[in-house]
Amino acid sequence: MDASSSPRNIPKRLLMGPGPSEVDARVYRAMTQPLVGYLDPALLEIMDQIQARLRATFRTRNRITLPLSGTGGAGMEAALVNFIEPGDAVAVIVGGLFASRMCEIVERCGGKLSRIEHPPEKTADLDQVRRVLLGQKLQVLAVVHSETSTGVCQPLEPLRELAQETGALFVVDAVSSLAGLPLEVDAWGVDICYSGSQKCIGCPPGLAPITLGDRAAEVLLRRQKPVSSWYLDLNLIAKYWDTERSYHHTPPISMFYALDEALRLVLEEGLEATWERHRQCHLALVQGMETMGLTMFVEDPAARAWTVNTIRVPHGVDDARIRNHLLERFGIEIGSGIGAMRGRIWRVGLLGRTANPELVLLLLQALESALDENGFSCPRGAAVAAAEKVFQTVNP
Amino acid sequence: MDASSSPRNIPKRLLMGPGPSEVDARVYRAMTQPLVGYLDPALLEIMDQIQARLRATFRTRNRITLPLSGTGGAGMEAALVNFIEPGDAVAVIVGGLFASRMCEIVERCGGKLSRIEHPPEKTADLDQVRRVLLGQKLQVLAVVHSETSTGVCQPLEPLRELAQETGALFVVDAVSSLAGLPLEVDAWGVDICYSGSQKCIGCPPGLAPITLGDRAAEVLLRRQKPVSSWYLDLNLIAKYWDTERSYHHTPPISMFYALDEALRLVLEEGLEATWERHRQCHLALVQGMETMGLTMFVEDPAARAWTVNTIRVPHGVDDARIRNHLLERFGIEIGSGIGAMRGRIWRVGLLGRTANPELVLLLLQALESALDENGFSCPRGAAVAAAEKVFQTVNP
Repeated sequence: MDASSSPRNIPKRLLMGPGPSEVDARVYRAMTQPLVGYLDPALLEIMDQIQARLRATFRTRNRITLPLSGTGGAGMEAALVNFIEPGDAVAVIVGGLFASRMCEIVERCGGKLSRIEHPPEKTADLDQVRRVLLGQKLQVLAVVHSETSTGVCQPLEPLRELAQETGALFVVDAVSSLAGLPLEVDAWGVDICYSGSQKCIGCPPGLAPITLGDRAAEVLLRRQKPVSSWYLDLNLIAKYWDTERSYHHTPPISMFYALDEALRLVLEEGLEATWERHRQCHLALVQGMETMGLTMFVEDPAARAWTVNTIRVPHGVDDARIRNHLLERFGIEIGSGIGAMRGRIWRVGLLGRTANPELVLLLLQALESALDENGFSCPRGAAVAAAEKVFQTVNP
Repeated sequence: MDASSSPRNIPKRLLMGPGPSEVDARVYRAMTQPLVGYLDPALLEIMDQIQARLRATFRTRNRITLPLSGTGGAGMEAALVNFIEPGDAVAVIVGGLFASRMCEIVERCGGKLSRIEHPPEKTADLDQVRRVLLGQKLQVLAVVHSETSTGVCQPLEPLRELAQETGALFVVDAVSSLAGLPLEVDAWGVDICYSGSQKCIGCPPGLAPITLGDRAAEVLLRRQKPVSSWYLDLNLIAKYWDTERSYHHTPPISMFYALDEALRLVLEEGLEATWERHRQCHLALVQGMETMGLTMFVEDPAARAWTVNTIRVPHGVDDARIRNHLLERFGIEIGSGIGAMRGRIWRVGLLGRTANPELVLLLLQALESALDENGFSCPRGAAVAAAEKVFQTVNP
């Protein structure tokens, strides 16, 4: 380590992994606006604007809608520890790593856990979930909307009905779905929903947007014991975001500037147009992958998240060699499998600004060349042509 | 809220409150370097560099030395919840709001708390502390080095001896002291020390540097129960920063770039030169304030933090009017009192890049004018002249 060495040159990557995603130059510029104090009128105005923009993005009128001063994992922890007291019954639907993490957090805060597992390449079996929950009185039913470790998108509305029958608060992880996949917090009756700034919102990592409905806010007020985490205590945090403005901690102000600008970009395009762009890029990518002879990990097209696309590593192909080839030769990052999926799948994130037709075609071209050089041959140029055709069809 | 409104104009303030502090243009520039993935070799190299630079700044060889993905409050929470299990005896020395917050966190994680209070304008009375601790077997003795709510700097070495006698881990809050006041983690036997990025390091808020000695690391490994917080579980976080590189959460990468550059600036100047700059600015500010007829809140000059300078609001002067005058007329932010100190003191932060002779003189000039217009008259120009004289004397 040399204190006086000149600034390091960070390579420019195309971020096509499961996050962080590509960030617009306007967001970077916004991030370097001069810092002000945590009660500066200029900051409070931006905070109000962020709240309004987050409400529009979550499709909610929830008063408590704000970004937590941590990454997506902080959002998950806050969405659970604030609403679970020791001994509370909690059910988590588990098809991948992030849902497993929810279970770990539930156990750490003393919840009585029902873990409802389903195969990682499928959505949950509603009949099975119903059987497990039958007659239970639950505090929380938690589910991951788009499981970033598997690429499965879980339909939320049927689960919300089951949550209602058990009296549970319905907690939804929208880390890789918010602003990429249709999500209607109010219309779908989601009580608590959280996300991360670095996925479809297109902001650098560091903030976790969260929204709470009235039922959740009431549970928070009526807790017997204080929340085990002071840093993520939503009762305290909400008071800084509300008219009280009472100090809790000095927030990551530069990140607020970036988030505000990233949300502005999402809403300028329009939320539904943004969803549609993610859908088109996903369809074109799948078409290209299948034309190349690759197989999607999630068989049922209706169960695929448009945002995190999972592809089986073909038999005989070295997972890491292909990823390194893409990174070193083309500067493209894609994700490896994680947890139980390690070595079995690749994860291509088409999140936020990365959900862009040009990037989809670039990746297909680069992957074709990487596979070809590593002994897996596919018809030259066919994948790109197939993907282009999808773009022409869906958006003529 | 209008999605398409043009970017807001953030006013340029002189940040002379208790944080955030002034940020160098190089740090802003570093922050906008392109994002890369959380396992990108370029990022891992920067992370290693940050660790080395933090070790140099904390004056430690501790292996586990890293920035947590949260603000200073997250550092405080991590420094306590990782080392305290339900029923553990914990003593906290309390002279202000931030030490009180430590107590709140200790209680939330089930620690058996001894709260050792002392008057807010003084350091702790060592005899009193010794009497309370006599014969106790403690898990943790916690203290705030520079209490940001009062401006008192607590000498650490005598307390370390008391910690040793009780077998306690010695936990030090260095939020407003790291890189501003002499602090020697290894030489002074501090077991756990944390800070915030937005004070003397001169980086935007959003990261909490923390360092753990070997004894603390062992306690962590031998816990009976997992840490209540998954997000701040240092066992898990350390594995991402160590050679294992195992995924815990996607960190705030842009903030890492900024922290790396801010630490580079500190070490380029030299840590001791940085401390000395803080000392000189503090002495000049005090001289100016006293020449203006104002009274420092901390009577004993040896008990004053050089970084957070607290001044009594004179009788008959409206605290908020003066602060608003400074902000609106001159674009200067100073801090109000907080908690029990509200309305009684002003807090002038001379933290990091803000510890600058020109800013000290600017503030004195502006405050003189603000006081004058609000009915508190002082000899025109005398404060600035007195402060200038200090700068000439200490640094001829």
